Amino acid sequence: MVSASESSRGGATPLSRRPVVILGATGTVGQRFIQLLTDHPWFEIVGLAASGQSAGRRLSQACHWLFPGQIPAGLGEKTVNALDPDRLLPKQSDFTPIAFSALPVDVAREMEPRFAEAGFAVFSNASAFRYDPDIPLVVPEVNAEHLSLLDHQQQVRGWPGFIVTNPNCTTIGISIALKPLDVAFSLERASITSLQAVSGGGYPGISSLDILDNVVPFIDGEEEKIERETRLLLGRVGEDGQTEADILISAQANRVPVIDGHTVCLSLGFKDRPTVTAAIEAMTNFRGPQTVCGLPSAPSPPIIVCQEANRPQPRLDRDASRGMAVTVGRVRPCPLHDLRMVIVSHNTVRGAAGASVLNAELLVAGGRLR
Amino acid sequence: MVSASESSRGGATPLSRRPVVILGATGTVGQRFIQLLTDHPWFEIVGLAASGQSAGRRLSQACHWLFPGQIPAGLGEKTVNALDPDRLLPKQSDFTPIAFSALPVDVAREMEPRFAEAGFAVFSNASAFRYDPDIPLVVPEVNAEHLSLLDHQQQVRGWPGFIVTNPNCTTIGISIALKPLDVAFSLERASITSLQAVSGGGYPGISSLDILDNVVPFIDGEEEKIERETRLLLGRVGEDGQTEADILISAQANRVPVIDGHTVCLSLGFKDRPTVTAAIEAMTNFRGPQTVCGLPSAPSPPIIVCQEANRPQPRLDRDASRGMAVTVGRVRPCPLHDLRMVIVSHNTVRGAAGASVLNAELLVAGGRLR
Amino acid sequence: MVSASESSRGGATPLSRRPVVILGATGTVGQRFIQLLTDHPWFEIVGLAASGQSAGRRLSQACHWLFPGQIPAGLGEKTVNALDPDRLLPKQSDFTPIAFSALPVDVAREMEPRFAEAGFAVFSNASAFRYDPDIPLVVPEVNAEHLSLLDHQQQVRGWPGFIVTNPNCTTIGISIALKPLDVAFSLERASITSLQAVSGGGYPGISSLDILDNVVPFIDGEEEKIERETRLLLGRVGEDGQTEADILISAQANRVPVIDGHTVCLSLGFKDRPTVTAAIEAMTNFRGPQTVCGLPSAPSPPIIVCQEANRPQPRLDRDASRGMAVTVGRVRPCPLHDLRMVIVSHNTVRGAAGASVLNAELLVAGGRLR
Amino acid sequence: MVSASESSRGGATPLSRRPVVILGATGTVGQRFIQLLTDHPWFEIVGLAASGQSAGRRLSQACHWLFPGQIPAGLGEKTVNALDPDRLLPKQSDFTPIAFSALPVDVAREMEPRFAEAGFAVFSNASAFRYDPDIPLVVPEVNAEHLSLLDHQQQVRGWPGFIVTNPNCTTIGISIALKPLDVAFSLERASITSLQAVSGGGYPGISSLDILDNVVPFIDGEEEKIERETRLLLGRVGEDGQTEADILISAQANRVPVIDGHTVCLSLGFKDRPTVTAAIEAMTNFRGPQTVCGLPSAPSPPIIVCQEANRPQPRLDRDASRGMAVTVGRVRPCPLHDLRMVIVSHNTVRGAAGASVLNAELLVAGGRLR
Repeated sequence: MVSASESSRGGATPLSRRPVVILGATGTVGQRFIQLLTDHPWFEIVGLAASGQSAGRRLSQACHWLFPGQIPAGLGEKTVNALDPDRLLPKQSDFTPIAFSALPVDVAREMEPRFAEAGFAVFSNASAFRYDPDIPLVVPEVNAEHLSLLDHQQQVRGWPGFIVTNPNCTTIGISIALKPLDVAFSLERASITSLQAVSGGGYPGISSLDILDNVVPFIDGEEEKIERETRLLLGRVGEDGQTEADILISAQANRVPVIDGHTVCLSLGFKDRPTVTAAIEAMTNFRGPQTVCGLPSAPSPPIIVCQEANRPQPRLDRDASRGMAVTVGRVRPCPLHDLRMVIVSHNTVRGAAGASVLNAELLVAGGRLR
Repeated sequence: MVSASESSRGGATPLSRRPVVILGATGTVGQRFIQLLTDHPWFEIVGLAASGQSAGRRLSQACHWLFPGQIPAGLGEKTVNALDPDRLLPKQSDFTPIAFSALPVDVAREMEPRFAEAGFAVFSNASAFRYDPDIPLVVPEVNAEHLSLLDHQQQVRGWPGFIVTNPNCTTIGISIALKPLDVAFSLERASITSLQAVSGGGYPGISSLDILDNVVPFIDGEEEKIERETRLLLGRVGEDGQTEADILISAQANRVPVIDGHTVCLSLGFKDRPTVTAAIEAMTNFRGPQTVCGLPSAPSPPIIVCQEANRPQPRLDRDASRGMAVTVGRVRPCPLHDLRMVIVSHNTVRGAAGASVLNAELLVAGGRLR
Repeated sequence: MVSASESSRGGATPLSRRPVVILGATGTVGQRFIQLLTDHPWFEIVGLAASGQSAGRRLSQACHWLFPGQIPAGLGEKTVNALDPDRLLPKQSDFTPIAFSALPVDVAREMEPRFAEAGFAVFSNASAFRYDPDIPLVVPEVNAEHLSLLDHQQQVRGWPGFIVTNPNCTTIGISIALKPLDVAFSLERASITSLQAVSGGGYPGISSLDILDNVVPFIDGEEEKIERETRLLLGRVGEDGQTEADILISAQANRVPVIDGHTVCLSLGFKDRPTVTAAIEAMTNFRGPQTVCGLPSAPSPPIIVCQEANRPQPRLDRDASRGMAVTVGRVRPCPLHDLRMVIVSHNTVRGAAGASVLNAELLVAGGRLR
Repeated sequence: MVSASESSRGGATPLSRRPVVILGATGTVGQRFIQLLTDHPWFEIVGLAASGQSAGRRLSQACHWLFPGQIPAGLGEKTVNALDPDRLLPKQSDFTPIAFSALPVDVAREMEPRFAEAGFAVFSNASAFRYDPDIPLVVPEVNAEHLSLLDHQQQVRGWPGFIVTNPNCTTIGISIALKPLDVAFSLERASITSLQAVSGGGYPGISSLDILDNVVPFIDGEEEKIERETRLLLGRVGEDGQTEADILISAQANRVPVIDGHTVCLSLGFKDRPTVTAAIEAMTNFRGPQTVCGLPSAPSPPIIVCQEANRPQPRLDRDASRGMAVTVGRVRPCPLHDLRMVIVSHNTVRGAAGASVLNAELLVAGGRLR
């Protein structure tokens, strides 16, 4: 349970905030971590780290700041450290140290275990360990119970810390929208076509020469991730691993000239065919677990169902609930399966940094961290 | 059969070209007609017409020319006429007069029959009569045999002329790509998601304020058209009408910030499941009916299957075979149905004006027109 | 002076807020007025009005809402009235009624005087009366003293109310950036090239077919407005009119594919040639008149000078100070005149609706309104 | 003079074509060289070369092909060589070997002299030697006479070959438009603001994250190049060097979300103030030197003056005369100087690869090459 001092966004004093470090702080997701954690009621950024040439430089020199305005006050002058757990370990803190990781997959594979070994609770946005049986792949509203794997993970790996991962940007929005439908009507088949924003490709990511006046109908590895991670999130957790749900999923991923916000068209088949009204009702009433609802970064509600015929749209709906809600629209019958609908979610907030932060908040609130 | 004088693009002298008029000459599709028919070996533009305020003005005043460069030489000074069949009827011509129609649906519903009644062979891009049982909905490579309905049509309606329609812009590309697959493997199910260019909405069409940095997941009436017209094109023709093929089709239509070229993601299920190789082979070898192959506007081949992992793309592939070919890529297995693939075709050339011109060429070559 | 109850944004209770009506509430600027006036500490929207077919319909039906999220709570159900001053006059209010006008120029020319005649303080974004000698054209930070014309206006016109106008969207940003430079160094020549966002053209405004992958180097009437209005703002006010400053100005206006935020490149010649440092200092230290500084919508400071070589940029800087600040960068010597620099300002906030609101706040704070 | 066999585009047989190699063949300009030289009547690509990792790979593997369709037939399988003049020297050819260079500036500085030393006539698009006194910076229509420096260059450097450079992409369009005005009215001052396409930044160049819904008002080094190179092109040539014209030029360069085609706004002051009519006449009648007119790549005429109020526009006018013409519009008086106008030219055709090819054609036609 969340302690009194952490229960309201305004109530925390800086002294009581938990120290966090950001790994891979200079990229698009790293910058989102900085943005979301500045003025966070529970967490305080005490360290920035990155691989390669960024280490040793000040953040303002090491990163090409991508968001409106300037680097949050004070952080631009902060030095970006090398990825060294010992040096990044907060001194004189009674709290479990927290590391948010936006590392590239290869670096994550090597470095995240070293942070867990050094005692960090690692909340990772990288795909390196998403499919390891003892490492939970979690979206709080969808499968918070998968965090029960952490004890097993610490035992097996002998780590004082641990790693929690969140899925890729597209899957997060999808899994939240599908969760209440799966609970109520038992999802069996999903045909998924995504229209993904360029920020999903990192920085510099896709060249303007490739995407202006164009669509690129291919994102390397994305379709496999969407299919597998959606099944994992809607699957079950046992004592020593997660089991993929038995759902047939076909994903087709496209890049479109949109800055932020992934749009996904879904055609869905269920065991118990829902009416459109029943499906809308299930999504509208969905709240996720009680423990998640009051978290500082939790959207309330997690799913917004819009009425307009031409919504959701990425530019208009990506920032709903400060970028943490999933917006659903055009829920209608499908001649092929049962239902069609469109969802939009913010790919670097809800779909990346915000997802890791919410995972951390959930464990803090649940008393899982010292 | 095509006569000798019409068999080669270079062989026709201006004197022998058939007189054609363009109805709705000032809009996006009307302008494409002008572009495609300027210097056409068989056809010569002798009249322009439009509804509303355009009539009576010179083309250069009546239309906002949308394509690179200028209005083709001589046409800018031509007066746009009212939609009056009698005044537009070419004088002293032994040929059946031809009218290409890019009229808005409501105007088409009223005016196209009057042109047919006046003796015109009307090749229409409008949706007004697409579903009338005696009016063929035709893409030459797909269902040229449906033109056999014309005798019945003339008999029933008592028209010396007739109306031939072509499907909406998205369906044309889809139906061409699906035709050889349906012939070889019997298509049963298709999940279709389109990413459509803004030129598909006409001019001015969608506001820049609605589509920059955005996707609009809704195009009024488009999904129903794609589903129904694809079934009609792949269906059978009887003595007095067309029968929709028995295929389950679900379409989801999106508008994206692309000037020209519709991208479509397909997930397909067949009675006889093809391998990827067999599917590629069927599409690569597809030529359409023999009579279509040599027509001036016929792409050769109609389907281009590309090898690159990230193709087709609208900006790179929309102009293949002067905008008349359909480019297919990413043919791969589908976890849900049998095959997935992506197609790109030019929505105002192959998907609109060019389709009507090809229909006219087919009837000329077949000797159906005086 | 601003009364105690109006001095802080949080201090006003709804009951004490002044009633305002929005004329032309359904267009792009009208919607900005709605956005900026919702939860305004001093003003409360009590009426919406528009010309043409919007009147009589609910706002949610009458307007295509352009901004992220939804129409502010409660307003979507409000009926849009006809432009009838008598019916829009707030009942039982001791305050001078205020009308914010986003009317098209022709409608403004006819209707704004009728609102002034009915007692409204009209704050207009239209160009209809900008050049009338007795009607002040004002940007608070630049020429607040021109409001002294109001007494003369009321006397001459016999109105209990009055009209105050603000300049076109591009001029506002320019005039704010130039004001401190003119004061310190006496501006003599300005070569101005603008790269203007599509929202400046209203809705639907410029078609996506005209602006995707393109620049349109022409905006009807804009160059003349920029030249003349900049001279008026930097000019002097006498008892009965404004005098244009004696500055040679050449403007070239371009439309670019940007949603919001006008970018302007300036080359400037002064009587007293400033160093780059002195120019930056003058702009950085600029605060505008004391009475303006604390107004609810006043940016603080009005001008932000950025250091980065590649700033300002419209997407990154348009929202500075909630869209009300002007961001200046690349201040450097000019081989032709004295200085070059680039400015960005939000064209529908600072450059339109926000400018009118700030004018109204200034008159309220100055005690000019009952 | 051009020999008979080279005088018509269709007349050359493959055997008689001069062998050319492309240095830096894999980048955006290198690919344009490939596109322009495929099927060139006088030149035949016999070698491709590039620095770094491209060498040793086939072109189709080494480059990300940027243009519609596919790599021209046969070239995709060609191996990209290292930048070794000896290995690239065509064997058994009586012609002076020609190298077209699209090398990065640092590589060009080292390698171009080695190709000249090995006997190549090097036509360079790089900026490495643009300002060396003995190396001509030439646009054929503007200052063909500067090629007289080549004898001096060969003498001084002791090279059997030589280097000819062309200016940066923006300057080329500007200098062509200004040439007839300078000749007739003596240009004294030019205020220049460019809106440059993303292809000018090479590939991958500017990230989509930086330019979608945005303008970047800074291109490193571009303004200095525009100012200096325009003065050099309009300047005089002496026995041993070029002298910059005495013109005050101020350039401001912006990047805009346009694929190809630079738009430039000009405000111009002359010694002899022209009327708008006289200026239009001078540009319309401009043909450049007689020897240039009939060259295979020469646009005819070099300058197109358009009448429409809203032209030129990059998407509509960049491809005029196969991308080699400069389109001018909005010629009108200027309150500050004498004239304002807007120009558009294709930055990678006219402004880069096409410029080098035209330089080579000019020297071939003039008999300067064996």
